[in-house]
Amino acid sequence: ADQDAMARAREHQDRLTKPRGALGALEDVAVRLAGAAGVCPPPMPVPAALAIFAADHGVHAQGVSPWPQEVTTQMVANFLAGGAVANAFAASAGASVTVVDVGVAADLPAAPGLRAHKIAYGTADLSAGPAMTTEQAAAALRVGVEVAGELIEAGARCLITGDMGIANTTASAALICAYTGRDAAEVTGRGTGIDDATHQHKIGIVRRALEVNRLRAADGFTPERPEDALRALAAVGGLEHAAIAGFILGAAAARVPVILDGVIAGSAALAAVALAPAVAGYCVAGHRSAEPGHAATLDHLGLRPLVDLELRLGEGTGGLLAHPIVSAAVRVMHEVATFDSAGVTEKEG
Amino acid sequence: ADQDAMARAREHQDRLTKPRGALGALEDVAVRLAGAAGVCPPPMPVPAALAIFAADHGVHAQGVSPWPQEVTTQMVANFLAGGAVANAFAASAGASVTVVDVGVAADLPAAPGLRAHKIAYGTADLSAGPAMTTEQAAAALRVGVEVAGELIEAGARCLITGDMGIANTTASAALICAYTGRDAAEVTGRGTGIDDATHQHKIGIVRRALEVNRLRAADGFTPERPEDALRALAAVGGLEHAAIAGFILGAAAARVPVILDGVIAGSAALAAVALAPAVAGYCVAGHRSAEPGHAATLDHLGLRPLVDLELRLGEGTGGLLAHPIVSAAVRVMHEVATFDSAGVTEKEG
Repeated sequence: ADQDAMARAREHQDRLTKPRGALGALEDVAVRLAGAAGVCPPPMPVPAALAIFAADHGVHAQGVSPWPQEVTTQMVANFLAGGAVANAFAASAGASVTVVDVGVAADLPAAPGLRAHKIAYGTADLSAGPAMTTEQAAAALRVGVEVAGELIEAGARCLITGDMGIANTTASAALICAYTGRDAAEVTGRGTGIDDATHQHKIGIVRRALEVNRLRAADGFTPERPEDALRALAAVGGLEHAAIAGFILGAAAARVPVILDGVIAGSAALAAVALAPAVAGYCVAGHRSAEPGHAATLDHLGLRPLVDLELRLGEGTGGLLAHPIVSAAVRVMHEVATFDSAGVTEKEG
Repeated sequence: ADQDAMARAREHQDRLTKPRGALGALEDVAVRLAGAAGVCPPPMPVPAALAIFAADHGVHAQGVSPWPQEVTTQMVANFLAGGAVANAFAASAGASVTVVDVGVAADLPAAPGLRAHKIAYGTADLSAGPAMTTEQAAAALRVGVEVAGELIEAGARCLITGDMGIANTTASAALICAYTGRDAAEVTGRGTGIDDATHQHKIGIVRRALEVNRLRAADGFTPERPEDALRALAAVGGLEHAAIAGFILGAAAARVPVILDGVIAGSAALAAVALAPAVAGYCVAGHRSAEPGHAATLDHLGLRPLVDLELRLGEGTGGLLAHPIVSAAVRVMHEVATFDSAGVTEKEG
C-alpha cells in the first residue's frame, strides 16, 4: 500500500465539511483504498464483481454438516438461475456474479456465468491426511488469480469473494488454527446449524486434521514460511479456499480492493497474507460472521468488519452488503466540499 | 404493526434457500417492514427520501459547542449546494434530499430544495427555562408530519431522518434523560468534539435543564403521559427534534418505514413513541452513533442498529448508510428462491 497516498487521504478528510473523524471507520476505509490504488482520492470501487468459488470436501464423510453434499451442486444451479441470496444482494449492489467450479464433486452442465476450472471432484478427507496435493492447491490459487485478472480486465474496480461448499467451515477452522495458532475449540463453530454433539465431533475432527497433517507449532510448523503456508493450505484447506486466496492475490497485484466475505474468505485471506504479507493492505473486511473463528481471523489480519449483523450464510453475502458502505466512503473523497470551498467556519480551538 | 404479516414473513424466510436464521438481523428487518406495511413481502423501500430539519438552539450561548452558531446556516447552504457528506451518501443510496428550516437563527434565502417553515429564530436557552412553548413544539411536530406526508405523496417508500443544528446534542441528552430516566453524566457526550472541561460543563447544563424544567421523576414527571411527553419535548428539545418526531409520526401514519439516523433522531423518536407507542414498529435504527446517549436510547426503543462504525456526524448520514442494508433485506423476500422452487435439498434433522 502507498503510504504517501494514505497520508494525503487523511489530510483531505480533515479539510472536508464535517468534524474531524466524524465518519469513524469510514475514514479508515477511504484511506485504505487510497493506499491500495496509490492515488488520492482513490477510484470509486464500481462496478463490483462477485466471484463464487464452489467446491466439495472429503471431510463431509465425517458427518460434520447436516447438509447433504449434493447441496453444493444444487446451490450452484441456484446461483446460475439467479435465485440465491447472493444474487439478490448482488442486484442491490450492482455487482456481477461469476460462479467458478474449482472442485464440485459432480459434473456440472455448461451454463452462462459458470466457469469450469474443476481441479478435482472435491478434496480428500483432511482428518485422514492432506486434503490436496500442493500441486492441486497451487492450481486452485492460479484459477483465483486468473479469475481476478479477467474480472478486472472486464472493468471491475472492486472484487468481492464468494464461496459455496458444504462442510467448508470445517476446513476454515483448521486453516485458522494453522495460521493463527488458536485452539480448535476456540475457532470451530456451528456453521450453518449443528447440534452440540456434532459440534464437539467437528472440533475433534479439526484437532485431528492439525495432528495428522503436522500443522502445530510443536511439529515445527511455521506459517510465516511461504512453503509452510502453502503446505497448510493444501493439507487442510478446500479448493475454494485456495482459489479465494489466489483471487485476493490477483486483486492486490492489480491494485484493486477486494472485499472479504465471512469466515471462508477470512481463512483464505490468512493463507494469502502468509504467502504475501502486503496483500492485507488491499483487503476490506466486509462483515463479521457469527462463526467464532472469524473474529480471531480478523484480529490476526488487523481488519475491522464493516457489517456485524450475525450473518452466517457465505456465498459472498456479507461482502456484498458492505459494498455500498465502501462505495459511500470513497464517494465522500470525491464529492464533499472543503471548509474553504463551502465557506463553512471551522470549530474554535 | 401487523402481527399476521410479520408471522407470514418469518415463515417465508424459513422456506428460502439458506439455512434458517442465516441472515441474522436482516431477517428481523424484513419482518419489521412486513409488519409496518401490513403485507408480506413488504414493498421495496425505494425510493428513499431524506429530510434534514435545521434549527438553532438558545443553549448555544452557554458554550456547549466549539462551533459558532452560524455553522447551522452555512451547512444549510452546503446541503443545498450538494457539498455535504449527506449529499454524497444520498447520491449513493439514490435518496432525494429535502432541507427544512424549522428554526434557523437567520433569514435564509429561498432556494430549490429548501422548505421554509421557520417557527422561531432558534429556541430559548433550555437551561434557563422552557426552550419552546408547547404551541411551538406542536407547530414543529406538524411541520414534520406534513413533510413526511408530502414526500410519501411524491413517491417515497422509505423516509430517512436528518438534522442540522449546532448544539443539538445538548438538547438530545436532556430529552434522553427526560424520557428514559437516565442520569445526565451517563448520556451526555462530546458531540462533534469538545474537551474534558467543556464536557463536564455540558453535563451540568443538561442537569440544570432537567431541574429548571421539572423533568425528573421526583417532580412528578411521567413521560408515559402524553401531556408530559409533549411538555418535555417543548422544554428541552429543539425545533428540529420536534419536527423529526412529527416526521416519524407521519411515516407511521402512512405505514411507510422510517430509518432513524443517530442520537438526534433517537431522542426525537423517544418523544414520538412517548406520544404514540405504536410508531416504534415503523422505525428502523440506521446506526449507533458514538454518542453515549444513543445506546441508551436504542435500548429504550428496543431497536438494534444496522451500522455501528463510530459515526458522529448527523445530517442523516447514518440512516443513509443503512438504507442499502434495509433494501437488501427486503429484496431477499421478493427474489430469493425457496427450497422447493429451486430443487435444493433441506438439511437433515
